[in-house]
Amino acid sequence: MQNFEYLSPTKIIFGQGSELRAGAESARFGKKILLLYGQGNIKVSGLYDKIVDSLLNEGVEFVELGGVQPNPRLSLVEKGIKICREQEIGFILAVGGGSVVDTAKAIGIGVPYQGKVWDFYSDKALPNESLPTGAVITLAAAGSETSKSSVITNEDGWFKRGLNSDITRPKFALLNPELTFTLPSYQTACGSVDIMVHVLERYFTDEKNVDLTDRLCEATLCSVLKYAPLALRCPDDFPARAEIMWAAAIAHSDFLGLGRLGDWASHKIEHELSAIYDVAHGAGLAVIFPAWMKYVCRHNIPRFAQFAQRVFRVEPDLEFPENTALEGIKYLEGFFREMGMPTRLKDLNIGDERLGEMADKCRRTPAGITGNFVELKRNDVLNILQLAL
Amino acid sequence: MQNFEYLSPTKIIFGQGSELRAGAESARFGKKILLLYGQGNIKVSGLYDKIVDSLLNEGVEFVELGGVQPNPRLSLVEKGIKICREQEIGFILAVGGGSVVDTAKAIGIGVPYQGKVWDFYSDKALPNESLPTGAVITLAAAGSETSKSSVITNEDGWFKRGLNSDITRPKFALLNPELTFTLPSYQTACGSVDIMVHVLERYFTDEKNVDLTDRLCEATLCSVLKYAPLALRCPDDFPARAEIMWAAAIAHSDFLGLGRLGDWASHKIEHELSAIYDVAHGAGLAVIFPAWMKYVCRHNIPRFAQFAQRVFRVEPDLEFPENTALEGIKYLEGFFREMGMPTRLKDLNIGDERLGEMADKCRRTPAGITGNFVELKRNDVLNILQLAL
Repeated sequence: MQNFEYLSPTKIIFGQGSELRAGAESARFGKKILLLYGQGNIKVSGLYDKIVDSLLNEGVEFVELGGVQPNPRLSLVEKGIKICREQEIGFILAVGGGSVVDTAKAIGIGVPYQGKVWDFYSDKALPNESLPTGAVITLAAAGSETSKSSVITNEDGWFKRGLNSDITRPKFALLNPELTFTLPSYQTACGSVDIMVHVLERYFTDEKNVDLTDRLCEATLCSVLKYAPLALRCPDDFPARAEIMWAAAIAHSDFLGLGRLGDWASHKIEHELSAIYDVAHGAGLAVIFPAWMKYVCRHNIPRFAQFAQRVFRVEPDLEFPENTALEGIKYLEGFFREMGMPTRLKDLNIGDERLGEMADKCRRTPAGITGNFVELKRNDVLNILQLAL
Repeated sequence: MQNFEYLSPTKIIFGQGSELRAGAESARFGKKILLLYGQGNIKVSGLYDKIVDSLLNEGVEFVELGGVQPNPRLSLVEKGIKICREQEIGFILAVGGGSVVDTAKAIGIGVPYQGKVWDFYSDKALPNESLPTGAVITLAAAGSETSKSSVITNEDGWFKRGLNSDITRPKFALLNPELTFTLPSYQTACGSVDIMVHVLERYFTDEKNVDLTDRLCEATLCSVLKYAPLALRCPDDFPARAEIMWAAAIAHSDFLGLGRLGDWASHKIEHELSAIYDVAHGAGLAVIFPAWMKYVCRHNIPRFAQFAQRVFRVEPDLEFPENTALEGIKYLEGFFREMGMPTRLKDLNIGDERLGEMADKCRRTPAGITGNFVELKRNDVLNILQLAL
């Protein structure tokens, strides 16, 4: 186990009616706020009205900015920064899923910064201050509500890049599972993949002596395995939605990755996929992650076998542990398929035309490396994309 | 699952050398602090010198107060409050185990309060402010470093009483597993029992749809089951000590109890035991908790069977689930015994002379109830104590 530091400053308010706390919680940070949301579903569902009433009840003035897209765009971030500066906004309330929260975080760090906000996403600068943000979550997936991550797509060149900084962690997250009842099945499935892969990116490590954290990871994975199919079968199954929503919040808060390095190669490869083809992040991960597993599993057979045995209850083959390892990958891929997810690029109607371009663009260290568990070079990334065809 | 709110404001610094951060972390909260510790072991081990150097390096002035005992006493709390007021102390640094941290919390809320600090421990008042506190932990057990609890013994009548308030959560916890290498086996075992029972007090609930949290609890229990015996066999086994130390911090931070009510009857019964006989809290719990389990398990056989199956891998008896439930209790009791813990009052040389007195004093609601999972009356408490003979 590596030494670690951890502080999760996000106040969680979980359960029915938690969205009604938006006004009171926001008022603790600002009397004039930016109300940020996505494609307008919140106006159809009535959530917008509830949030607005809650803000007005607490005397919170707001400026609104809608239109955040999945794979959220830099141009909207820049628009948000401009509004916040002009209107002297003191707090940003994100209402939606990960794209909206990631955009709020980007605006938050962009406002006090003199340079271009993209600097933070292209390793040119580190943020050291931010407008405070908070979130009302309508999609259990990205876990951005508790995470230190934000991922933004720059339309100039279609680069999708992530930033990790504790300064971006939201001040509060209002989590009402009922707000996810109306999600289409595809999005529910995408969200469940995203949650699982957030855990798995941390799970696959060579770090020794991380048993408790391994088990906490496995606990979270087992719950998603159990409840995602229930939520797909019955979208207003409150208990199932609640388990998934809480799993999403835990999965990416770093709690499940303490004392170890995460890998994150699959996320980086997927970012190229969704930057070019604008596929849903979870769907892209359902394709890339199993391909990555197949490519790297011989690097640490015991760990993949542990995953198979503890998460999918595969009976360990003690003579040929590789069989156990491969069985686990098969089960995970099968689970993604059962949820209606693509598991091959062809399921997304993507051929081999731009694999080289994606491998070229895939984010890497100055030494040309992507990933930590296994250090991938450009050709490894290409091989993984080819395995995913 | 019940609606819940959660914010854990404690910054965790985990690993080798974390105690050297005491000065820098304390300096964030005060330039004149109270350095609180126990029976002086920290002077023997050299930890005291390290802490003092670290404080002086950061220009932090300190007043020291040693002598905190296990089952920490109100008189020392009052002494600490007096010192803090007279010396205009701005921060309290606790160096030790749960007793020291609990004392620091009590002093912290006592300093700004006009009445008697015991008011907070006897349901007469709720604290709404506190001097900030921080902790350097030398004993993995109570989890007071991340919890909202403090338990103090009033020598006037030997009442041992707990307080729960978010305001008492420490600002930081410095967790170096090496500091627990020199613990006697008995204390290591007591600590492990305490950790497990903190989880189990939350685990046994009638609340439905708390699957993810159940699994997180089971993960923590499984790790203690695996690593406590290793730490007992080899006291300087860093990985084992690290797993246990992290389990202690997780077990009582409330993270494992979100969305449900804990029971806490066993803790309350044990408090009477240790108030009268001054036994170690963990040893008392090793006696009381199995007796409580036997007394209440028919209230919810499926939950006890789940515990047996998931934590001890007992093969479920699907025809007679009660057998599975009872098997789990037997395994837990056996585990406590294997660690050298008492599991009967007679192992502590305690007879039946004062059982009635303990049942009378045991803390209960105005309606005369102790516990939430099963509501115990005075005679139930007596029956449990008799089962423990």
